[in-house]
Amino acid sequence: MQDLDRDSVTAEALAQMADTPDPRLREIMAAATRHLHDFAREVNLQPDEWLAGIAFLTAVGQACTPFRQEFILLSDVLGLSRLVNVMHDAAGREATGTETSLLGPFFREQAPEFAAGESIAVHDTQGTEVVIFGQVTDGAGRPVADAAIDIWQTNAAGLYDLQARDATVMDMRGRFRTDAAGRYHLRTVKPVGYSIPMDGPVGRMTRLQNRHGFRPAHIHVLVAAPGYRELVTALYFADDPNIASDTVFGVSQSLVVAERLGLPDSPMPGLPAIHYDFRLSRDAAEGSGGRVGADPSRLMPAAG
Amino acid sequence: MQDLDRDSVTAEALAQMADTPDPRLREIMAAATRHLHDFAREVNLQPDEWLAGIAFLTAVGQACTPFRQEFILLSDVLGLSRLVNVMHDAAGREATGTETSLLGPFFREQAPEFAAGESIAVHDTQGTEVVIFGQVTDGAGRPVADAAIDIWQTNAAGLYDLQARDATVMDMRGRFRTDAAGRYHLRTVKPVGYSIPMDGPVGRMTRLQNRHGFRPAHIHVLVAAPGYRELVTALYFADDPNIASDTVFGVSQSLVVAERLGLPDSPMPGLPAIHYDFRLSRDAAEGSGGRVGADPSRLMPAAG
Repeated sequence: MQDLDRDSVTAEALAQMADTPDPRLREIMAAATRHLHDFAREVNLQPDEWLAGIAFLTAVGQACTPFRQEFILLSDVLGLSRLVNVMHDAAGREATGTETSLLGPFFREQAPEFAAGESIAVHDTQGTEVVIFGQVTDGAGRPVADAAIDIWQTNAAGLYDLQARDATVMDMRGRFRTDAAGRYHLRTVKPVGYSIPMDGPVGRMTRLQNRHGFRPAHIHVLVAAPGYRELVTALYFADDPNIASDTVFGVSQSLVVAERLGLPDSPMPGLPAIHYDFRLSRDAAEGSGGRVGADPSRLMPAAG
Repeated sequence: MQDLDRDSVTAEALAQMADTPDPRLREIMAAATRHLHDFAREVNLQPDEWLAGIAFLTAVGQACTPFRQEFILLSDVLGLSRLVNVMHDAAGREATGTETSLLGPFFREQAPEFAAGESIAVHDTQGTEVVIFGQVTDGAGRPVADAAIDIWQTNAAGLYDLQARDATVMDMRGRFRTDAAGRYHLRTVKPVGYSIPMDGPVGRMTRLQNRHGFRPAHIHVLVAAPGYRELVTALYFADDPNIASDTVFGVSQSLVVAERLGLPDSPMPGLPAIHYDFRLSRDAAEGSGGRVGADPSRLMPAAG
């Protein structure tokens, strides 16, 4: 038995985990424990502060439901989600590939399929109608035919379908496919920037940090085609006042767009349009393990 | 707007928190964010691993109830609780003061009062009866009269009352008071070592780490007297097979005891006895902010 002091307790904790059979779990938990202890030592964490942290994490966990993922939100506002996304991107994206962004907690599997030119704004049709068109290619500019393009976004009030309606209705989301030349076009209404949910523990934390809590207006995009790396990204609107201070750090310059009238090649010349080409990277062995986000219902513990 | 990379995302996250009005919250959140990012970079955390972590923390939060604190348990098995306790101790405990230990999640306010010599084993009386006696003094050995001594422990089956019975019954816990000479004596049954709860996410984690999950047999003690620092400690039994590998790192050599027959001064010579004197430190300004643990019901978020 050791009389553990403020340094030796870390070594002892690591020693107790040293027989973990899975080497990656051992590595991750050892690093997590070391950094957790380093954090506590650096700030000289006091018992009442530790207890406040326990109460906060408990509240974050209790706020999670099949339709709300408060821990992903916490990861997002701390910049961790962006960091994980950047590291994943560095490993598998080709230099020519479209930059990625966060999947977020509002993606849903099996969104409805639409034909080229149709609008995903089926129930909530208010707002400025815009066209998005372009081409999906590989890194060398060769067209990718029959690629699936999932898009999802808020309505013009800043709400996703899961927030605006009961969960049985899908709206403001859908899947399109590229034609033989890799081309796509679709209609939607312009999304607006929105606040992260402020009625939970993470929202309360950001208020205590004097943060505005807003994401700039954006449209999520997921492009998938056999043989190519799944592209999880988003298009951000240049005219949003918070374009430079996204509270979840999702924006990259190359993903910023602006709708314009009279764009050459627009398939619907009467409407404001965005021309955006997506460039895919070749598939590595990683499969679909690259989504920084998930359907919240998949992250709830099994009952009992 | 910045194109955030794996390093600049940390600076940007800290910049967004830089206007936090409370300087201590700002300091703690900045350090937590830096260490969290350092951890993710060190292990090159992948999206599917990040998602597994989100699901784990969600499960930990969902496992918390007014009678169970799974996040304290997580802190315990990672050695964080011990570390916070050690740092707190270093700041306020006099060199002559009794060493401290973890409060844990089973302390309850307003345990029943007992007269000297009575037994806290009221409902669960099975097991080896033992006497504990001694004196409460200040650092110079001067008696502290009328000090309150709370003790709580498992029954002989390794269960606390909150686990063995419904929450309306208090058992295996109680408060004694020292006499004019600072002396106390009490009876109980010898506790046994026990496994941390293995049916929750933290238990599952420790199984994946090949840890035994046991705490050595111990009796929790909280000594309070006006003008003195609250002493939160525990006595550990030398003959427990896990005395050197407590899964929550609570044991210190000076807190290890063994019951003996025929101890001099035992007030109940017919029973195995433990003689333990508690030495208090003078009170600093910190109040009762020094408890590394809490009644689980106090850590649940308010409804709605």
